[in-house]
Amino acid sequence: MQLFALDASRAFGEAVAAALGVPLAAHEEREFEDGEHKARPLEGVRGRDVYVVQGLHGGPDQSPNDKLCRLLFFLGAVRDAGAARVTAMIPYLAYARKDRRTKPRDPLTTRYLAQLLEAMGVDAVVTLDVHNVVAFQNAFRCRAEHLDSRLLFARRLRGMVGEGPVVVASPDPGGVKRAQLFRESFEAMLGREVGAAFMEKRRSAGVVSGHLLVGEVAGATVVVVDDLISTGGTMRRAAEACLEQGAARVFAVAAHGLFTGPAAEAIAAPALARTFVTDTVPPFRLPPALLGARVEVVGAAPLFAEAIRRLHAGGSINDLLEHGG
Amino acid sequence: MQLFALDASRAFGEAVAAALGVPLAAHEEREFEDGEHKARPLEGVRGRDVYVVQGLHGGPDQSPNDKLCRLLFFLGAVRDAGAARVTAMIPYLAYARKDRRTKPRDPLTTRYLAQLLEAMGVDAVVTLDVHNVVAFQNAFRCRAEHLDSRLLFARRLRGMVGEGPVVVASPDPGGVKRAQLFRESFEAMLGREVGAAFMEKRRSAGVVSGHLLVGEVAGATVVVVDDLISTGGTMRRAAEACLEQGAARVFAVAAHGLFTGPAAEAIAAPALARTFVTDTVPPFRLPPALLGARVEVVGAAPLFAEAIRRLHAGGSINDLLEHGG
Amino acid sequence: MQLFALDASRAFGEAVAAALGVPLAAHEEREFEDGEHKARPLEGVRGRDVYVVQGLHGGPDQSPNDKLCRLLFFLGAVRDAGAARVTAMIPYLAYARKDRRTKPRDPLTTRYLAQLLEAMGVDAVVTLDVHNVVAFQNAFRCRAEHLDSRLLFARRLRGMVGEGPVVVASPDPGGVKRAQLFRESFEAMLGREVGAAFMEKRRSAGVVSGHLLVGEVAGATVVVVDDLISTGGTMRRAAEACLEQGAARVFAVAAHGLFTGPAAEAIAAPALARTFVTDTVPPFRLPPALLGARVEVVGAAPLFAEAIRRLHAGGSINDLLEHGG
Amino acid sequence: MQLFALDASRAFGEAVAAALGVPLAAHEEREFEDGEHKARPLEGVRGRDVYVVQGLHGGPDQSPNDKLCRLLFFLGAVRDAGAARVTAMIPYLAYARKDRRTKPRDPLTTRYLAQLLEAMGVDAVVTLDVHNVVAFQNAFRCRAEHLDSRLLFARRLRGMVGEGPVVVASPDPGGVKRAQLFRESFEAMLGREVGAAFMEKRRSAGVVSGHLLVGEVAGATVVVVDDLISTGGTMRRAAEACLEQGAARVFAVAAHGLFTGPAAEAIAAPALARTFVTDTVPPFRLPPALLGARVEVVGAAPLFAEAIRRLHAGGSINDLLEHGG
Amino acid sequence: MQLFALDASRAFGEAVAAALGVPLAAHEEREFEDGEHKARPLEGVRGRDVYVVQGLHGGPDQSPNDKLCRLLFFLGAVRDAGAARVTAMIPYLAYARKDRRTKPRDPLTTRYLAQLLEAMGVDAVVTLDVHNVVAFQNAFRCRAEHLDSRLLFARRLRGMVGEGPVVVASPDPGGVKRAQLFRESFEAMLGREVGAAFMEKRRSAGVVSGHLLVGEVAGATVVVVDDLISTGGTMRRAAEACLEQGAARVFAVAAHGLFTGPAAEAIAAPALARTFVTDTVPPFRLPPALLGARVEVVGAAPLFAEAIRRLHAGGSINDLLEHGG
Amino acid sequence: MQLFALDASRAFGEAVAAALGVPLAAHEEREFEDGEHKARPLEGVRGRDVYVVQGLHGGPDQSPNDKLCRLLFFLGAVRDAGAARVTAMIPYLAYARKDRRTKPRDPLTTRYLAQLLEAMGVDAVVTLDVHNVVAFQNAFRCRAEHLDSRLLFARRLRGMVGEGPVVVASPDPGGVKRAQLFRESFEAMLGREVGAAFMEKRRSAGVVSGHLLVGEVAGATVVVVDDLISTGGTMRRAAEACLEQGAARVFAVAAHGLFTGPAAEAIAAPALARTFVTDTVPPFRLPPALLGARVEVVGAAPLFAEAIRRLHAGGSINDLLEHGG
Repeated sequence: MQLFALDASRAFGEAVAAALGVPLAAHEEREFEDGEHKARPLEGVRGRDVYVVQGLHGGPDQSPNDKLCRLLFFLGAVRDAGAARVTAMIPYLAYARKDRRTKPRDPLTTRYLAQLLEAMGVDAVVTLDVHNVVAFQNAFRCRAEHLDSRLLFARRLRGMVGEGPVVVASPDPGGVKRAQLFRESFEAMLGREVGAAFMEKRRSAGVVSGHLLVGEVAGATVVVVDDLISTGGTMRRAAEACLEQGAARVFAVAAHGLFTGPAAEAIAAPALARTFVTDTVPPFRLPPALLGARVEVVGAAPLFAEAIRRLHAGGSINDLLEHGG
Repeated sequence: MQLFALDASRAFGEAVAAALGVPLAAHEEREFEDGEHKARPLEGVRGRDVYVVQGLHGGPDQSPNDKLCRLLFFLGAVRDAGAARVTAMIPYLAYARKDRRTKPRDPLTTRYLAQLLEAMGVDAVVTLDVHNVVAFQNAFRCRAEHLDSRLLFARRLRGMVGEGPVVVASPDPGGVKRAQLFRESFEAMLGREVGAAFMEKRRSAGVVSGHLLVGEVAGATVVVVDDLISTGGTMRRAAEACLEQGAARVFAVAAHGLFTGPAAEAIAAPALARTFVTDTVPPFRLPPALLGARVEVVGAAPLFAEAIRRLHAGGSINDLLEHGG
Repeated sequence: MQLFALDASRAFGEAVAAALGVPLAAHEEREFEDGEHKARPLEGVRGRDVYVVQGLHGGPDQSPNDKLCRLLFFLGAVRDAGAARVTAMIPYLAYARKDRRTKPRDPLTTRYLAQLLEAMGVDAVVTLDVHNVVAFQNAFRCRAEHLDSRLLFARRLRGMVGEGPVVVASPDPGGVKRAQLFRESFEAMLGREVGAAFMEKRRSAGVVSGHLLVGEVAGATVVVVDDLISTGGTMRRAAEACLEQGAARVFAVAAHGLFTGPAAEAIAAPALARTFVTDTVPPFRLPPALLGARVEVVGAAPLFAEAIRRLHAGGSINDLLEHGG
Repeated sequence: MQLFALDASRAFGEAVAAALGVPLAAHEEREFEDGEHKARPLEGVRGRDVYVVQGLHGGPDQSPNDKLCRLLFFLGAVRDAGAARVTAMIPYLAYARKDRRTKPRDPLTTRYLAQLLEAMGVDAVVTLDVHNVVAFQNAFRCRAEHLDSRLLFARRLRGMVGEGPVVVASPDPGGVKRAQLFRESFEAMLGREVGAAFMEKRRSAGVVSGHLLVGEVAGATVVVVDDLISTGGTMRRAAEACLEQGAARVFAVAAHGLFTGPAAEAIAAPALARTFVTDTVPPFRLPPALLGARVEVVGAAPLFAEAIRRLHAGGSINDLLEHGG
Repeated sequence: MQLFALDASRAFGEAVAAALGVPLAAHEEREFEDGEHKARPLEGVRGRDVYVVQGLHGGPDQSPNDKLCRLLFFLGAVRDAGAARVTAMIPYLAYARKDRRTKPRDPLTTRYLAQLLEAMGVDAVVTLDVHNVVAFQNAFRCRAEHLDSRLLFARRLRGMVGEGPVVVASPDPGGVKRAQLFRESFEAMLGREVGAAFMEKRRSAGVVSGHLLVGEVAGATVVVVDDLISTGGTMRRAAEACLEQGAARVFAVAAHGLFTGPAAEAIAAPALARTFVTDTVPPFRLPPALLGARVEVVGAAPLFAEAIRRLHAGGSINDLLEHGG
Repeated sequence: MQLFALDASRAFGEAVAAALGVPLAAHEEREFEDGEHKARPLEGVRGRDVYVVQGLHGGPDQSPNDKLCRLLFFLGAVRDAGAARVTAMIPYLAYARKDRRTKPRDPLTTRYLAQLLEAMGVDAVVTLDVHNVVAFQNAFRCRAEHLDSRLLFARRLRGMVGEGPVVVASPDPGGVKRAQLFRESFEAMLGREVGAAFMEKRRSAGVVSGHLLVGEVAGATVVVVDDLISTGGTMRRAAEACLEQGAARVFAVAAHGLFTGPAAEAIAAPALARTFVTDTVPPFRLPPALLGARVEVVGAAPLFAEAIRRLHAGGSINDLLEHGG
């Protein structure tokens, strides 16, 4: 087995390597003045079972497109060099929000990612909490494994919700299924009933004109669950709507903390008691003061490490999902 | 252009042909004593733009598997015979409910359908209201067009909901997105606000222990929207839950009326004021007395005819979806 | 190694498992009210060498199309779950009689089966006595192994043909090659010359108007050899023609006993001294009284077990064919 | 439409071009001292419907392998240059006798030809009287059309067989199906019954020890039908066996006259009254004195021309086969 | 025909459109805060012959990776929307310098570009003066057309070289073939002999230790020809070496002016009399004062326009290359 | 591991086998009178790592096309028979000089070879000193390894060049890169500076009118390096040009000695002090007297043996190239 992490994902890759108890394999990644790059393994891969870590979030130095191209080219070089099996470990899968055609001639970017990764000869792709797991599972024809952070968060929140009523809410209709799975896991863990709610946008002549909170939240601790936090506006609006309807307090939970634009302000707003994300995206855009105080980061690397262990040894990824590794 | 309809879909095929103003092309479909069949076009297809109609619902004589194999083999024969382009028109796409892996090693049947249809050389697939449009759009690498019945139903219901409050409900979390689209179209058509609601199952130790109606329905006319009605149990439970919460009356809307098992009883239950389906699945399992009285069938063939017209001439399928053909 | 048998082929699968000395791996196969099904392995298959047994004859509960779809979907699920190699063991391959295009736009179903099985990612296909081995070997681009029952039958018949002249006959021109191979094996086993004959249909204005027995059968024990017995009419006519030409008695030999329609009557006719088939198709349509009395079943499972043993260990399938395992 | 004929098939290509009323398109075919060649179209092919004629028989200057490589490379150049459709017209398809695996690890050369031609991007392949039409139709996944010379020969022989009994014989068991089709066509053309017969080899300890003529030929004019004549030994032995059994005289019919080794002697033997072949293979190895006297050549170019006409215009190839163009 | 230009290549796209006399088709290209984008055609493309212009040089706003992903996704959207044919027009093809494996496990990026573009369903790719035309022509299996700027430059330089001796030089051994072609064209245009020279690096223990000018340049006007100018260091060193060997003056010619890092300084150095590039890469990094004074830009859009015209109408691209459009 | 050598490459194959210390695996290769052949492994290959040696030079009995077809069909038979991995070892790769399109519609034969070999299911291809390594590395999508003879020759020549100045020359511009690599290796081995030179053709109105020697050779020992020697004319002209410019003497080095046409005369000419080739092509066209006297053959089989050893064990091919095995 051989584990590479491209430079932009070195921190997460090292965490995975540490959890696996193996060193990261050496590679070279050079930048050229014209904006091109060259990356290649510095160790032989012939006949090996190779894993390559590269998250696709926009980072301080590289755009999602940069990271995608580096991943594609590096996978190609690994394949050409005779690896027996090549698995892309993608902590954050970009372009996953474009999961359906809503306007004429819309791109279906999840499927395009699948076609591009397969064109470079990848055997398997592993990711965490994509925007739409149905899109992900149907788009790939190579092996595609989907990890899930809900047990990580449910364990962390178990001791924080107190004795009063608890409601799990989705901030939009598309996330109701994700919230349902979280609610079921949380209900099983707490051993008592947990309520459900979701937000929907009102549109007037095609323009969003208001919001609609569906479900009963009065007096409850509300956990708003989403796949990612971008500007934080969706989370903040959901929290405010819950509080308006009498919720006791609101926690925000999302696997991926992109925290773009005014996210720091949204997260710091009083409506959100606390926000939980994993470390798939380093919170480089957040003021350090917020970290720990208002935003808590739960490590997801052990989940990826366990997935690699099972893929390599022939174990079951599904058990991992059900029992948390 | 050449339009075939396999025997099991002859009625729907003739409706499409009539709407297009073309005759059905002749084919032969023979049964053998050992359960095999043979089907072939009786007219030359070389260089033609060929459309083949075959719904995949279980019918009085043929199972979904039967229909799928007939479709696959017939498409192969059309391709071998030199058709310039082959499009499968599938009014009801079977196996679409298996759109994600929920248990270990679950089959992803929507993707398998895509792989099988593409293996026979199909150029495009057109269907109506699949269970999960995201699965459908991501699974196919050939052209895949998804038609939508919501405007057909919204037009029919416009005059029936009266002046009081109206709520569109999904009978489960997975259908919230579909209900949202219906609600938005209906809101635009009615010119006033329409509410939202959905049902969720409560589970205790993995067993369904009750239901949870999320949303406010008191005093409202509720339209429960789903992709299909199988035993009718889901619809009936949703209607009863709405009435318990004070709903004025409940209409059921679903593109595909499979009506299996105790469906007749569920549809005839007082909780459901009226049920609306299209003719993609002939209601052969319902007592004739129910038809018209409690169940109303809206014709979907013109939608397919218009889709063929646009595919053949190079027009936009999306406009068709937005403005109803 | 892991051996699955789908429900409709459980009996044959268990015989193969017993001959191999391994248990059948567990799977789930559920029926839904709308005619769809869901099947999945209940044991992990990641990295395993997986064999799936499914015959494709029409059975009491399932049509050939049903069985084919179940096989295709199950193979897809096994492939998705990470099996290292997937082999379909198909004791009876349906649709093999459509091996050439005789009318315009005829389907070439053997090739379509190959395309569909390959589309689901199968690595190898093994079957027994297909209608046309040339079609089978040329249609598949994945590995395709063809087993042959002639040694099983020759051994059984050796002691039954007595000392007089023996003739091996094909009931139609297309089977002459198969009869030739049987004749050569039988000749070698008996250590004396064996004669040849075949039947041809006379047509008048495209309609069959009579039969033509080519070859000398007077005074001989005739063994009529075919790949399968469907209604039994072909066998009965061949036997009657042989007797009319003075044959002493006639045995019928065919790998697959489909026994459709009036087969029981044909098999029981005095013209056929005795009929020999394998157990690839359970004789569920025959009256039990015929079994043993007039129809004898030779077990083919050990042949499949030996093929699996050799495929798994890297041995030669050809030796198996030449020396009978 | 554009018709090329590679140099080794120029004579046949010109006959096809003449029958079509179009000129052959210009190409360059250069030989190098090291045995390599280079061929390219000298006319633009972008967007054209291109047909390339190349027979694959061993000729005076080029081996079948030479011709195959030239065809493959030329098809690649035509495809690269932007042809809209590329059809290989192969009057004689080499390697077609290796249609099944008879010994361990035997090559399946018909399928390999299909894979190679498809790898170069060919859209369709047309040939005449392959050794085994079942192998041909199943091996190709691109369009594969099979032309048939039996009407050409039946018309020629109609006036030659006289009023006495006529029998159509196959010189081996594998050709019985071909002889049956010829017999049926000839019977329909003559308007009276035609008999059937075939030859089989006797083997003793794996060695051919004699021949077996199956069928009644006494007093009859026998037409022995095969796909090709190589050394002529098979034909000669069949003729002699028929005469021994009392046949009045024997005609030999075969689409392809390869005439290798001692063929001239065999053809000139008194047992064969006259031999009929087409011009797919020029009879360069026969003494000119035999041509006309003992061997008659029937032109097949009009059949290929008519096939091109129909492929180009979208007509039916099957009608061509049934009614002879 | 329909011509799109992505935003980053709008200026060049408009020049091509103007030369073709057609408007650019409308598209939408949106940026998201997380660094993702979405692009889609705003006009229907079904059944159209679509051309998409996107250069892949690093620009002021977008990296080569950004541009490549946008191109790939946009091509996918065009293909999904039913275009009849999709051609990528790539004025500058990035990653073309990595045309061979020089160190272990080096990526072969030209081939990866081919695999990625083909995975998105592109039918043809057109570019200008790639680093290695052999790599380009062999890497693509879809149609790949290579345009050449040498006639544009030769025409411009004809009047500038005066009457004295002229030498065409390559600044490295890999470019000798390109320089040879330029020299031959220039010789033909000038009607007199033109000399040749090239530079090679001296290495000592793997480190470049000096340069070696091969060829005679004393008293001559030297034209140094390369595919691109990056930092300008290579050109400057070549020019200085020529002057040291007595050259009269040195012109620099390159299709693509990337002008990275210290390029402005190199170009302004006295050793280079004048530098000529095309407009495939806008000279955004050069001080405006240099343009016109020391750097001259020759428009290449008419060459691309003519290529589109010929691809659309079925004309010859090769003639275009030989006679300059 | 299993090593086959087809008959035409038996000598080289035996040398490789000897260097590996394994016997050649048995195969059968039969010729038929009509020019077809049949080849098959005589040993089981199921699950084995199979290497097949076949050079593609025109030999005394077989043309390059013959050898290519034999190789393709044999690879297909090995693949069909269940080999785990199949590698083609091609000491001399024919058709490699056609590496780019220079005239309209030129074939790109290196790419076609790649497509054909991949169509037969080859996993890897290994060759030595192809005409253009860039074409080779970009054309193949399966693994393609390129061996290099320069260290073999440099070692042999080290002791022969004396103390005076040494120049490495390419006989044409396309070979300058190859000569550069040789020069660098030789310089490192000799420990002193080595000069560079190349030849270019002068053309007048498209016709070669003379030659141009670029570089300084006076007083030097010149080593002219090329990939192959065909008629020897290029080498002889280069040598004569060097001597005219004052070179002390000239050695010729080329991996492949095809020696066609007047090669013996060219090689024996006084201008060439000595010629060095490997044994990839047996020098069957040279008079034996020349061998040893004027032509020296360096064995390349150990290089192929070492490549097989590393491919089989997962070692690095690149190290082999850099350090010579």
